[in-house]
Amino acid sequence: MGNSHAKGKLFVISGPSGTGKGTIYHELLKEKNTDFSVSMTTRAPREGEVDGKDYYFVTREEFLANVERGNFLEHAEVFDNMYGTPKDAVERRLERGRNVLLDIDVQGGLQVKAAMPEAVMIFILPPSMAVLRERLEGRGTETQEIIEKRLSQAINEMKLLAEYEYYIVNDDLETAIAEVKSIVTAEGRKVPDKIKSIISKYEEE
Amino acid sequence: MGNSHAKGKLFVISGPSGTGKGTIYHELLKEKNTDFSVSMTTRAPREGEVDGKDYYFVTREEFLANVERGNFLEHAEVFDNMYGTPKDAVERRLERGRNVLLDIDVQGGLQVKAAMPEAVMIFILPPSMAVLRERLEGRGTETQEIIEKRLSQAINEMKLLAEYEYYIVNDDLETAIAEVKSIVTAEGRKVPDKIKSIISKYEEE
Repeated sequence: MGNSHAKGKLFVISGPSGTGKGTIYHELLKEKNTDFSVSMTTRAPREGEVDGKDYYFVTREEFLANVERGNFLEHAEVFDNMYGTPKDAVERRLERGRNVLLDIDVQGGLQVKAAMPEAVMIFILPPSMAVLRERLEGRGTETQEIIEKRLSQAINEMKLLAEYEYYIVNDDLETAIAEVKSIVTAEGRKVPDKIKSIISKYEEE
Repeated sequence: MGNSHAKGKLFVISGPSGTGKGTIYHELLKEKNTDFSVSMTTRAPREGEVDGKDYYFVTREEFLANVERGNFLEHAEVFDNMYGTPKDAVERRLERGRNVLLDIDVQGGLQVKAAMPEAVMIFILPPSMAVLRERLEGRGTETQEIIEKRLSQAINEMKLLAEYEYYIVNDDLETAIAEVKSIVTAEGRKVPDKIKSIISKYEEE
């Protein structure tokens, strides 16, 4: 019993730039039984990147063939290169009982939810717009114009919060990480749709 | 933002006798912001019992008036005394942002779910029937006949697991308690149906 043969779950983590989403995602990847999703891309491998580990590197033709047979949870074109999350690779991990994490923007997240409605959708929010502004300005890497653009983009993304199942307010990072871990634990304890196998085990005794 | 003004949730904890449900329930009651539900009863107060704290002590007429106006999440008659969980008292606590715990058998749990579909249903399972038998026998307080009856009752209760949302296998008590706490935390992070208030706060800034 327990979790040993249960299917894993896909956790989608989204949130505006500056909310600490990336940090939370990387902390969660350290958990047992947890994988990141390997993206497929048409861009050339950079030095040290390993096919099937960092990315699945494919030709444009191969990528489009995957699009055609509906094998992307989401995909997008960025600067002439295509990127996508292959459904079959994610499914293989889930079947082996692994949880899979996906750090993705809200638009991509909504594509994933449409392709895999059982995905667990988690939205990371800033404590306030003032704090979000502080954090973006604190980076010191972006112009004021870019920062204003990110802030208005944040509002637009947050308007789609209703499409997500859980929200985390990242005021204190440790608390936020603990809360996301609780969501992962709780999701693992949900009574599955097919519970007959659980009950029948006790009846056989 | 955060949890300060969010409504609390009702957590129903059920499971067969011998699963450690009671111990888990009492541990959870120690959590911040968590109340047990005060039952209403027609039985006489025992020495030291305080009205409104241990029970709401009422006459049979008052109890039946509550039944009539649909103010019980569940109720039952035990040895000529009536017991029930008053809905209005639970609602008052939830409105104040408190979580409310209810330790109740499966039949009662299903009544609660019918009366309050948003209740979070948690089922505590034994690691195996053999362990459940050991635990019941280890108590040394019940006859073999009673133990057999409890075991077959356990199977019957577990057949209703599908009506519950979460299941916890109480193999290790500390793990089981941590898992239930994770469920409470995760439920507190669910995007509420009415999320406009969350988003509008950011837009006002």
